[in-house]
Amino acid sequence: MNFDMNSIENILTGFLRNETNRIGIKKAVIGISGGVDSAVSTFLTVKALGKENVLGVMMPYKTSSKNSITDSQKVINAVGINSQKIEITPMVDAYLDNYADKKISSKRKGNIMARMRMIVLYDLSAKENALVIGTGNKTEAMLGYTTIYGDNACAINPIGDLYKTQIWELARYIGVPENIINKAPSADLWDGQTDEGEMGIKYKEVDNLLYHKYDEKLSDSELIRRGFSKEYIEMVDSMVSGSKFKRMLPIVGRIYE
Amino acid sequence: MNFDMNSIENILTGFLRNETNRIGIKKAVIGISGGVDSAVSTFLTVKALGKENVLGVMMPYKTSSKNSITDSQKVINAVGINSQKIEITPMVDAYLDNYADKKISSKRKGNIMARMRMIVLYDLSAKENALVIGTGNKTEAMLGYTTIYGDNACAINPIGDLYKTQIWELARYIGVPENIINKAPSADLWDGQTDEGEMGIKYKEVDNLLYHKYDEKLSDSELIRRGFSKEYIEMVDSMVSGSKFKRMLPIVGRIYE
Repeated sequence: MNFDMNSIENILTGFLRNETNRIGIKKAVIGISGGVDSAVSTFLTVKALGKENVLGVMMPYKTSSKNSITDSQKVINAVGINSQKIEITPMVDAYLDNYADKKISSKRKGNIMARMRMIVLYDLSAKENALVIGTGNKTEAMLGYTTIYGDNACAINPIGDLYKTQIWELARYIGVPENIINKAPSADLWDGQTDEGEMGIKYKEVDNLLYHKYDEKLSDSELIRRGFSKEYIEMVDSMVSGSKFKRMLPIVGRIYE
Repeated sequence: MNFDMNSIENILTGFLRNETNRIGIKKAVIGISGGVDSAVSTFLTVKALGKENVLGVMMPYKTSSKNSITDSQKVINAVGINSQKIEITPMVDAYLDNYADKKISSKRKGNIMARMRMIVLYDLSAKENALVIGTGNKTEAMLGYTTIYGDNACAINPIGDLYKTQIWELARYIGVPENIINKAPSADLWDGQTDEGEMGIKYKEVDNLLYHKYDEKLSDSELIRRGFSKEYIEMVDSMVSGSKFKRMLPIVGRIYE
């Protein structure tokens, strides 16, 4: 998994330029959370399309950490783009207060928040004639740590083929502020939540496994020889296969076959 | 385009049974609008899974026609399923009143409504451990008369390979109430809105063209010989190609190629 960061930057900014040209829309709208993924996506998009063509959108919920806004603002300032802040609290709470059962889980709440943000981004996309740029990485997509029709919804995604550990490396290379790279990745649904704690994995280890298994196509026995336990391999396999539906289009009943 | 309705019913109820078995979830949640598409989808799902396994959800907005609720209730009564009514007005208006520009178009409003309904259906899907059943037909999918991540979002869709004219025929065959089949199809965003008026097409004519062009693969000169004008063929072609992104996954920038 050693890649030249200069090549990756060139491939991904080239991708953004080619796709926006092909589609015929050169403006972009992007949700900025204060995390490293949306920071990298924003830096790449600004390099590819120019800062005057990118709108950054902060969409906090009332429980979002204050640091998320501070860090989002840091990204926005670093690249010099226009931005908007749209609180999703009124929309989310209109559902939670009126309709949700009182024992609604944090996971259901998190999905509602992710989808409300999609609604805001897609409405701004229509308003500004701008493409929604994706901010999801390959690790979370493969493990299913995403909300279908929520944070995984976008027109084009420059970072969807990069594992989290590669995102960190690229972030450093392109100059994302250090504290954003160093903080523990979190969906920011409650105080102290971290991706690694919630999924029960370490990104460094799981990225290594995913890369060797799905990119390099190593066999399980070879993976075990390299130090991964059978249980760990099985746990990751079941996360990958159990979330396949999030990486697919809906299944349609076919008549013409 | 002559198909045996008994075969189609068997293919589609078999599809629903096979997919729900494969996925391991036999409960279904379905948005019921009062229109013929969601009625047919509901009838098929109830036949396939049993009425005790299907939850019908009515999600009116404050401007929705009263007939939509009356007709939804007719469908629910005809198949004997449990139902819920969740008004999307508080969530939609929380966005429109707080954030939307005053000159927001009906199209943008309609997309917000369709996506709010998706949020409700997917939250009930998580709450009830039930699959979201699709209610979009092939004509609207091909012409792009859908909201991406809104009404076109679902787990499995039994009617997505049926043109609108086939939906009408199947509706009659499986016993959908007559007035639901006979009323003019409408997204019900404003009084007097109809699909055919808004798109500038007639379903009967456009289905014939789509079927002969995309299923039968007839050439444009053969289509012209059969009475379609060059202008009409070009208009439909541009609707089909311009909405391709709604029938695709997001485009990801690939590093490993």
